[in-house]
Amino acid sequence: MSRTHVTQFAVAFGDCDPAQIVFYPNFFRWMDAASLHFFAAAGVLPWHQRDAGDGIIGTPLVDAHARFIVPATYGDRIAIETSVVEWRKKSFVMRHVIRRGDTVLVEGREVRVFARRHPHDPARIEALPPPEMIRKLFE
Amino acid sequence: MSRTHVTQFAVAFGDCDPAQIVFYPNFFRWMDAASLHFFAAAGVLPWHQRDAGDGIIGTPLVDAHARFIVPATYGDRIAIETSVVEWRKKSFVMRHVIRRGDTVLVEGREVRVFARRHPHDPARIEALPPPEMIRKLFE
Amino acid sequence: MSRTHVTQFAVAFGDCDPAQIVFYPNFFRWMDAASLHFFAAAGVLPWHQRDAGDGIIGTPLVDAHARFIVPATYGDRIAIETSVVEWRKKSFVMRHVIRRGDTVLVEGREVRVFARRHPHDPARIEALPPPEMIRKLFE
Amino acid sequence: MSRTHVTQFAVAFGDCDPAQIVFYPNFFRWMDAASLHFFAAAGVLPWHQRDAGDGIIGTPLVDAHARFIVPATYGDRIAIETSVVEWRKKSFVMRHVIRRGDTVLVEGREVRVFARRHPHDPARIEALPPPEMIRKLFE
Repeated sequence: MSRTHVTQFAVAFGDCDPAQIVFYPNFFRWMDAASLHFFAAAGVLPWHQRDAGDGIIGTPLVDAHARFIVPATYGDRIAIETSVVEWRKKSFVMRHVIRRGDTVLVEGREVRVFARRHPHDPARIEALPPPEMIRKLFE
Repeated sequence: MSRTHVTQFAVAFGDCDPAQIVFYPNFFRWMDAASLHFFAAAGVLPWHQRDAGDGIIGTPLVDAHARFIVPATYGDRIAIETSVVEWRKKSFVMRHVIRRGDTVLVEGREVRVFARRHPHDPARIEALPPPEMIRKLFE
Repeated sequence: MSRTHVTQFAVAFGDCDPAQIVFYPNFFRWMDAASLHFFAAAGVLPWHQRDAGDGIIGTPLVDAHARFIVPATYGDRIAIETSVVEWRKKSFVMRHVIRRGDTVLVEGREVRVFARRHPHDPARIEALPPPEMIRKLFE
Repeated sequence: MSRTHVTQFAVAFGDCDPAQIVFYPNFFRWMDAASLHFFAAAGVLPWHQRDAGDGIIGTPLVDAHARFIVPATYGDRIAIETSVVEWRKKSFVMRHVIRRGDTVLVEGREVRVFARRHPHDPARIEALPPPEMIRKLFE
């Protein structure tokens, strides 16, 4: 539960808007990528490569929140420190702290579920309890 | 203050991820676009076309939050109902309700500031109180 | 073959870069969306809703080209005129002309294939000849 | 002129579409980022940090082309090898070869100009000849 992972990103020109700062949805895009790197670093294969019998296709969001404290611009190198701060029955909570050097730029929080295709209707997805196999990697 | 604006979007194939649902940062992208349409509908020109002497270059985020209730996929038509629910001294709060037909998909909330280039350091931006000229359009 | 479809887009603040003009990959994003609207306008359902027995999951690109003639910025309304200009044995060629009013901004050309999951290896995709059922809609 | 630079990217879940492969405009997004890394590696500061008196705000595109040879998916690590293959009077040509390991995935070509704000109309941009100071870094 106390495991953290840090993912590095370089802010690109095209990540910034006409105010010359990062267009804010990109911070969520980076948090999402950091979430997957977090699991990969613990040994969980990308969803499409796993063959764990649980049919997981992703970890869609239930809730997302971010506080934007200091802006970033292109040329900046940023680091996202990611951890799971809570495992719930049907969901889990990730925390992301985004820094440039020692400066905290953004604090984010995502509530996610593990999802698979609905067995009777592949057009729908359904939430699963966090798989034991994944959860215990973080204990 | 009670004014609302509805912006329509078509969910594209490329807005969706390998789980076949909207990649969540796109909802924030659409909320951001809806925010600008909200101001445009009230008669505020795009920032780069205004010549109001206040030097506003955008309305960057201080805080963003969304609850994701029902997923969407490509081919869907969605509507974002946008309003300003609070004017504060240095910031303001926007509310976005995203629907497909009558179904609420996402509820979002953005806290924003009006920003201009810092007069002594154009590489920085600074927050302004919401301009009277803009604020009174919504009273 | 001579059928064309026009899709309208509003250029958003977040579609533009620090030079205040559209970040160019967004033009390809819009062309991709226009391609799907082109098929939808002819009566082809989104891939995930079709049940045509051919397993098509998308129309990935083989080749893409664009000439950028006049830039666009946020607040602009643009129209993409899309047509299929050539049906080949295993691929097809789409043409996109992007205009703001009467001004041509971008001319694009995409070579695409119809793709399905490889029957023996779902992790791979394979190109199909353009389905007769779709092709004849444009004759 | 013979200088090349290699930029590494990790393909994220959100970079992929419902066909589970990279949504193609992202390849152009990465080429654009690789172009800036190419200049940075040669010692050219990000445009907003330079104070070279030439007012350059970016290197917008005149023409872009890509051949998509092999698809990529999330979890892949890709490398973009970038070079300037031609300096012209008012523009220059960049070449990008995108590989996963030894496999070439995409070959791209961008024709770009150096741009600054138009001196008499800051809402417009104008192309400059490639600055000597930048060009000679590659000779």
